Amino acid sequence: MLQGKVLVAQGGGPTAVINQSMVGVVIEARKLPSVTKVYGAEHGVSGIVNEEFLDLTQETDANLEAVAATPCSALGSTRDKPDEAYCANIFKSLQAHEIGTFFYIGGNDSSDTLRILREQATAVNYPLQCVHIPKTIDNDLMINDHTPGFPSAARFVASAFAGVNQDNRALPGVYVAVVMGRHAGFLTAASALGRRYPDDGPHLIYLPEKAFDMDAFTGDVKRVYDKYGRCIIAVSEGIHDSSGEPIVTKLASKVEHDAHGNVQLSGTGALADLLTDHVKSTAGIKRVRGDTFGYLQRSFLGCVSDVDQREAREVGEKAVQFAHWGNAEGHTTGSVTIHRIGNYATEYRLSELADIAGKTKVMADEFIDNVNHDVTPAFVDYLRPLLGSDMPTAGRLASPSVPKVNK
Amino acid sequence: MLQGKVLVAQGGGPTAVINQSMVGVVIEARKLPSVTKVYGAEHGVSGIVNEEFLDLTQETDANLEAVAATPCSALGSTRDKPDEAYCANIFKSLQAHEIGTFFYIGGNDSSDTLRILREQATAVNYPLQCVHIPKTIDNDLMINDHTPGFPSAARFVASAFAGVNQDNRALPGVYVAVVMGRHAGFLTAASALGRRYPDDGPHLIYLPEKAFDMDAFTGDVKRVYDKYGRCIIAVSEGIHDSSGEPIVTKLASKVEHDAHGNVQLSGTGALADLLTDHVKSTAGIKRVRGDTFGYLQRSFLGCVSDVDQREAREVGEKAVQFAHWGNAEGHTTGSVTIHRIGNYATEYRLSELADIAGKTKVMADEFIDNVNHDVTPAFVDYLRPLLGSDMPTAGRLASPSVPKVNK
Repeated sequence: MLQGKVLVAQGGGPTAVINQSMVGVVIEARKLPSVTKVYGAEHGVSGIVNEEFLDLTQETDANLEAVAATPCSALGSTRDKPDEAYCANIFKSLQAHEIGTFFYIGGNDSSDTLRILREQATAVNYPLQCVHIPKTIDNDLMINDHTPGFPSAARFVASAFAGVNQDNRALPGVYVAVVMGRHAGFLTAASALGRRYPDDGPHLIYLPEKAFDMDAFTGDVKRVYDKYGRCIIAVSEGIHDSSGEPIVTKLASKVEHDAHGNVQLSGTGALADLLTDHVKSTAGIKRVRGDTFGYLQRSFLGCVSDVDQREAREVGEKAVQFAHWGNAEGHTTGSVTIHRIGNYATEYRLSELADIAGKTKVMADEFIDNVNHDVTPAFVDYLRPLLGSDMPTAGRLASPSVPKVNK
Repeated sequence: MLQGKVLVAQGGGPTAVINQSMVGVVIEARKLPSVTKVYGAEHGVSGIVNEEFLDLTQETDANLEAVAATPCSALGSTRDKPDEAYCANIFKSLQAHEIGTFFYIGGNDSSDTLRILREQATAVNYPLQCVHIPKTIDNDLMINDHTPGFPSAARFVASAFAGVNQDNRALPGVYVAVVMGRHAGFLTAASALGRRYPDDGPHLIYLPEKAFDMDAFTGDVKRVYDKYGRCIIAVSEGIHDSSGEPIVTKLASKVEHDAHGNVQLSGTGALADLLTDHVKSTAGIKRVRGDTFGYLQRSFLGCVSDVDQREAREVGEKAVQFAHWGNAEGHTTGSVTIHRIGNYATEYRLSELADIAGKTKVMADEFIDNVNHDVTPAFVDYLRPLLGSDMPTAGRLASPSVPKVNK
């Protein structure tokens, strides 16, 4: 049974719907008479260590709903990746505030933090419930059919490509857009959902699941350009050569690394500029443009999937319900996971933290058409219901041509 | 009176609502029994020269409405800037197809093309009506209070900044976004409409109307960062130093020029990368990220101002009505212009082509706060009603902090 003080926090990269999950936890937990306080930690686990807690018991429902409809972590986030010592400090703070349940909304790193915390609590016989709530635009969590945040980001990417496809039809040329996703290509693959007519772009989609070759790339672009007089290309920021080296490092004189030792991929237009320069110099095509979608993919105000909103809310609500009532097996600790049970319907389960923690799911082979540098129809079928109920589509004129008279 | 064959074409950069204007012309013109055909030229004036006409008389209203709701020029566009000889070829094609009226949707270059055509027609006594229909995301046409396409692009920019402001609050640092606009800063200035709370970004806005200094920039960023622990910056792609040299050329070993001899500013992340590198190396701040909003600003599917949609439709409709009935002075040739007559209400007039053609409007001094690198409240009042009726806003938690117990 959920009782006393409960805590919620948000970790990792923001999404369009991560506040839905937080608000789901708060409103659901406040319904329970046995819950005395609902705290929110500012900036994820770093806020726990520093005792930066907000008393969310004192939020109005009206303001919580306004926050739920707002993109990005309202509690603040962190890139800290706690080790055993860091977790010991978290645990110390939780004990000091007599917090019995910790809901952490995040990706596989956040899940791993909960796994370590749970072990430390068990070792000293402190009754700490830990429930992980899934979130990531990368869609790379194991067990889950998909993760909250991904559908809205996918809607942004599909809408962006549907738009630049019109732009590129109006003023033809080569257009390259770089999409977020270091290891998993789901978000880049979502570009395919912007297509409607057979000649719509993106005409080429490069995913981090497959090796990228600069010379083959030139040949691919030339082939499409010869056929359509234009070429739209979706590229994952994480593309790499056959040795695994990121393509972006091929030009970078100075490369920034994050706290996890990874090369910094976002927040720079370097990869798009590298690829457009390459096409200009090797394919002999004049009008070559590149964009990097950047932070808009996860934060843009006003582009959200209503399916994603509802599911993000529900995983927060279900986290509280699992913690309070337990799942069918009586478990009250674990990771809430989304399972597709129909076309389109889902159910939520409480899975083992260890099955999610620190693991990365990438795109299944059945979703990738590596010959044509495209996704398969199976991927389109998988993603379409997630984009929401009112996804716009692009129209096109259908008039007959007028016979020429002058020539 | 409008009679016989009429022609419509779209020029310059696409916008979110340029098809509304085209559809406004087609539907309004088809109502007139004296109009026998409505043609559309593919890819602007180049399609006229090459006799690439579509017979829009054979479009269904249903499909025209689908196209009207689609961003970017459905007829295709062109970057050609016709001189006298080019215009002579346009005129030859118009004569061959017995086209008596030409509606051209575009910016100041398109207006200038009509001005030349009109002179050539008058010289040989050919009764050619020319009506210019305003369009540009840059908002830089004279006489007009604002131009169709700008409000929707402004809505995109404001929504993007409202979102990245949330992202940057969750994971603090310095964030630079480069916005379109070579000479006029209206679109960059629109970033201010993404703010709601006093500490919301953008905290610094750099417009092409004022000279940009790299050293002063560092100081500005440091000052904001010291105050808020973060800093969001909106920069026009057209910023230049006091000598007028674009900042982007300061780093570029190779710079691309367009048909007009201008340095290519869009389709590359170079300026954002230059500015973020500069902040990293001079301000000693670690987390510095940059985005270039790129082509999404003018093409994104699903971000449109309903005010802009309605006005874009109306300037197309009014163009036909002016051509058919004449304005109050009996003129049937000119440029349709938008005038603000209330808060918020507009009316449409038919102005002289020569007053629009080839001229550029920049932001008035009353809109620019150059001391604080910001816009003035007058600019916010000017822009807000244009963004549309359902502009989303960002919510924020209001909970009290919990007292610390450990320290």
